[in-house]
Amino acid sequence: MKLLEALSWRYAVKRMNNEKVPQEQVNRILEAVRLSPSAYGLQPYNIFVTEQKDLKEKIRKAAFDQPQVTECSHLLVFAAWDDVTEKHVHDYLNFVAAERNVSVEKLDKLKHHILKFVGSRSSKEKCEWAMRQTYLTLGTAIVAAALEKVDSIPIEGFLPDEVDKILNLREQGLKSTALFALGNRDEENDILAKAKKVRRSMDKLVRWI
Amino acid sequence: MKLLEALSWRYAVKRMNNEKVPQEQVNRILEAVRLSPSAYGLQPYNIFVTEQKDLKEKIRKAAFDQPQVTECSHLLVFAAWDDVTEKHVHDYLNFVAAERNVSVEKLDKLKHHILKFVGSRSSKEKCEWAMRQTYLTLGTAIVAAALEKVDSIPIEGFLPDEVDKILNLREQGLKSTALFALGNRDEENDILAKAKKVRRSMDKLVRWI
Repeated sequence: MKLLEALSWRYAVKRMNNEKVPQEQVNRILEAVRLSPSAYGLQPYNIFVTEQKDLKEKIRKAAFDQPQVTECSHLLVFAAWDDVTEKHVHDYLNFVAAERNVSVEKLDKLKHHILKFVGSRSSKEKCEWAMRQTYLTLGTAIVAAALEKVDSIPIEGFLPDEVDKILNLREQGLKSTALFALGNRDEENDILAKAKKVRRSMDKLVRWI
Repeated sequence: MKLLEALSWRYAVKRMNNEKVPQEQVNRILEAVRLSPSAYGLQPYNIFVTEQKDLKEKIRKAAFDQPQVTECSHLLVFAAWDDVTEKHVHDYLNFVAAERNVSVEKLDKLKHHILKFVGSRSSKEKCEWAMRQTYLTLGTAIVAAALEKVDSIPIEGFLPDEVDKILNLREQGLKSTALFALGNRDEENDILAKAKKVRRSMDKLVRWI
């Protein structure tokens, strides 16, 4: 299985060499992100992509000066909705109805489900839920990059409030959730480039019951 | 890219036909789960797998009677650690040191990072964080199943406290986070089997800045 090879090949690259990742590979990774599943299909997130040196430098300052943030080719910021509102749901249902060429009344059961969910949780809980959906999609992005043999690292170590300010995310109803750097490993300077991948054994991780 | 085809082919299967998924395919999907990244490589979760009819029926009752829970071949329960403790960190560092054949003192920087993280958050926050890591891995599982042309559905619609009780998860320091059913779609009875996949357009989802 090519996936298992790709997952064994990839690691969280700590140093990158500033080389560019070809645009068509970035586009395919983003298409995988777009096709990624999320609860109800709601996709409660946006992804920001930048190649800009200045912007990467600003974000690096908010990310404890991690070098990959500027050494990468493309820096992605995964940002979750800071709330899930009834308006989001109605907009979504109208969109689904139009795409499937059915009346929105046909989607009553789905509407009932989502509105019940939305109505029974606080904004904070819904943001947390949106962040989990974002991680699901980030999982797809990591796999997509590995299958393209594009190096990457998902980054949690940053100050979300700072990144929100840099990108004006709160004004857009968004909250930065994870950074994701795409680039090429710098084998000489990355001490982890040749380190053995460590994972718990199957019998410690998975329990057949 | 085979991945894009696989992601287009898959959908959240609502009805399955009780057929078995071959063991070697389940094993490969689980191996992808095992290789999946997580923050610090900590893998703060366990995965439970069952083919047992009785157990699936109990869980179906806790999952709003969704038919896939019993119609699937293998039902997986992704369970996050309900806390991340200093003991977890020390056990992990000892494990990494042994696997990489280095002294645990060599991992002082990593130790400092993780302990700082662990010491500055509440148990609830750390459980929430472990759940996000679990979603990252669930994302890998979904992709792995799709690449194997095995149907699947991730399920959030269940009562976690009930599933925790059924599997005695709290006694093991775990909290059920998501169900994941592997099986074969029942095209005749699944109204979504032929529905168009709906995703936001690239320009609505991704912003180049």
